[in-house]
Amino acid sequence: MSNAAVLHAPTHASPHAHDPLHALEDELLAMPPVAALGLRVAGLDDAGRLRLRAPLSANVNDKGCAFGGSLTSLLTLAGWGLISLRLAEAGLDADVFVADSEIRYRAPLYGDLEAVAALADGESWDAFLATLHSRGRARLTVQATVPLPEGGVATESRSRYAAILKR
Amino acid sequence: MSNAAVLHAPTHASPHAHDPLHALEDELLAMPPVAALGLRVAGLDDAGRLRLRAPLSANVNDKGCAFGGSLTSLLTLAGWGLISLRLAEAGLDADVFVADSEIRYRAPLYGDLEAVAALADGESWDAFLATLHSRGRARLTVQATVPLPEGGVATESRSRYAAILKR
Repeated sequence: MSNAAVLHAPTHASPHAHDPLHALEDELLAMPPVAALGLRVAGLDDAGRLRLRAPLSANVNDKGCAFGGSLTSLLTLAGWGLISLRLAEAGLDADVFVADSEIRYRAPLYGDLEAVAALADGESWDAFLATLHSRGRARLTVQATVPLPEGGVATESRSRYAAILKR
Repeated sequence: MSNAAVLHAPTHASPHAHDPLHALEDELLAMPPVAALGLRVAGLDDAGRLRLRAPLSANVNDKGCAFGGSLTSLLTLAGWGLISLRLAEAGLDADVFVADSEIRYRAPLYGDLEAVAALADGESWDAFLATLHSRGRARLTVQATVPLPEGGVATESRSRYAAILKR
């Protein structure tokens, strides 16, 4: 994919275009519903997991814990962001859509929200990028979780995304 | 459940407590992430379906269509609101949690959002309320859709909720 990186310009002009995580955060916060979450990109770790955070205060429900819709938004965005980062790295200019999700709300979260997204078992970046490059579209499944501060999981999701090359 | 209605006071004091749909809207909008959606309760029809609406402007994504997280939030809240209305009508004071959801994003929506929630096939309000009344907790599955203005479905969900009596 290194040749593709040379051939395609970055999708979005941004003061942070040189820093992929800041560029992703700018792109996410340009969406009004994402800005309302108070989202921040917390980092991409060595294992390739993307972390997004949002404060409880902007995402609290009637019971004083994290709102299910905000949890799902953060999980969905973490997967979307993970894929978008890889596409930018590969120099591929594509729209990424979420196609379907299964979400389990396992325990209430009485603290700030963090979503951690990673490739689902059996998925491969190389296969995804090669398919997208050759066929113009490809699908990928991402697993994501919102951990509990005391250990364990508040919410977990498994989502399929579709990427479609813009040209 | 009519005896229960006499025994239990309404959960929330509200200037709209006499009007269940306005009281529900007040309760929903008290949550910051729901206020950010720009949610409105559009009505409960004769078939027992609850409709919630939200403007595209507050819920638009990078592609100019409805953000997946907002679609899921509205779907989840429509089910939550449907159950909350029935609990209020039955005079039962319970917390309602979403337990899990399956969501399919079938087509992009380039317009305002409306979510329509109804009992899933095979579910019964009488059985749900009787179980909640006798055991203190009960589960219920709700189907919800976001229609496309031109016909068809933008997004559909199937979600299970748990209700737990407060006393």
